[in-house]
Amino acid sequence: MEYSDKQIAAQEAVRYIKDGMVIGIGSGSTVNEFLYCLAARMRKERLQVVGIPASKKSERLATELGIPLTTFATYQNVDIAIDGTDEIDDQLYLVKGGGGSLVREKMIDLVAETFIVIASGEKKVKKLGSFPVPVEVVPFGWQATEQRLQQFGCQTNLRMVEEDIFVSDNQNYIIDCDFKEIDDAEALHGSLKQIVGVIETGIFINMVDKAIVADNGELSILEK
Amino acid sequence: MEYSDKQIAAQEAVRYIKDGMVIGIGSGSTVNEFLYCLAARMRKERLQVVGIPASKKSERLATELGIPLTTFATYQNVDIAIDGTDEIDDQLYLVKGGGGSLVREKMIDLVAETFIVIASGEKKVKKLGSFPVPVEVVPFGWQATEQRLQQFGCQTNLRMVEEDIFVSDNQNYIIDCDFKEIDDAEALHGSLKQIVGVIETGIFINMVDKAIVADNGELSILEK
Repeated sequence: MEYSDKQIAAQEAVRYIKDGMVIGIGSGSTVNEFLYCLAARMRKERLQVVGIPASKKSERLATELGIPLTTFATYQNVDIAIDGTDEIDDQLYLVKGGGGSLVREKMIDLVAETFIVIASGEKKVKKLGSFPVPVEVVPFGWQATEQRLQQFGCQTNLRMVEEDIFVSDNQNYIIDCDFKEIDDAEALHGSLKQIVGVIETGIFINMVDKAIVADNGELSILEK
Repeated sequence: MEYSDKQIAAQEAVRYIKDGMVIGIGSGSTVNEFLYCLAARMRKERLQVVGIPASKKSERLATELGIPLTTFATYQNVDIAIDGTDEIDDQLYLVKGGGGSLVREKMIDLVAETFIVIASGEKKVKKLGSFPVPVEVVPFGWQATEQRLQQFGCQTNLRMVEEDIFVSDNQNYIIDCDFKEIDDAEALHGSLKQIVGVIETGIFINMVDKAIVADNGELSILEK
């Protein structure tokens, strides 16, 4: 059986899970692979863990796989977070949120003692920005917020699902901001986050402890 | 008939309304007085205006009074915003949000061509901060957000309504942050707004064009 890069990265990530851990579970297709590997290891080794999911999709899959879940209300100490990404650069800065769960992901990844990002090789970039930066905004007055985002030199798109406006798990909207190329991701995030109506951006700075990247079957582990 | 300070400030504010204006309508008891005065003037002078309300309460009262309303989706140019405040200092910086509508208020007040704040005299302070700063936060992970707010030296309270958590018009929570005294309101707002999970703070910096304050019947108009 041939494994995909996503599966290879996921299998490696599961090795960092220890008995008794509280695991922050991100979202996306690579995280789904992680959940399959985790469930298999739990069955095989009778590993006891508990997960805090960052999205309703991850919550559903984890539940189907029999992975016990909890919430921030119960555990505020997360031992490890495993999450995917849409882009990752050499400094291990990320652009995330293509799946629309950036706020919850950032919350969990930030709280976690250790944050491991897992990705296939095509997510590696020299410069962030070719993937449009998802920005979660307050629905009220989103048109004014969009205008302010455009002042930073991006093309903006209110995210839709067919005919309807996409609504995040937090009941907000997402404006995808296409910058093509971002020179200073940290400064850009800081500026965008200050805008009235902006809840959070998909730029993740200084958060990753370890990146597990599988590129055409070859595994590399990057640390900051 | 003796007028209250709130009524005196409201009556003065109505003089700034001109035919055809789009009016941002804040919220609170002083704004309610403004709406009564506005409705009276509309009847008397056949003034045609349209309002964008910042809260469901203001929306209800304006509707009852026959003031036509619209939304940001229709008008993104607001000619004038009239809003109350919980505190105002000499620089015309505000702490607002006691009523829980700070995000929508800030959005409207910021977009408006002219923002006039109306207040009774007891809202004037030497230093902001004796009124706890309301901070609107994402419900998911609010406990972690509260911990991060506390690192700025405030006592925090998740806002409740009797036994239930207060939910804003945007479906978020509010954490009231008691700083006692704020030395640098602009820096504090900037830092709090950067926190993951923080949507907006009740500190309004460099936004007020004119403050109409009535203090024991005496009217003063402050401009920046």
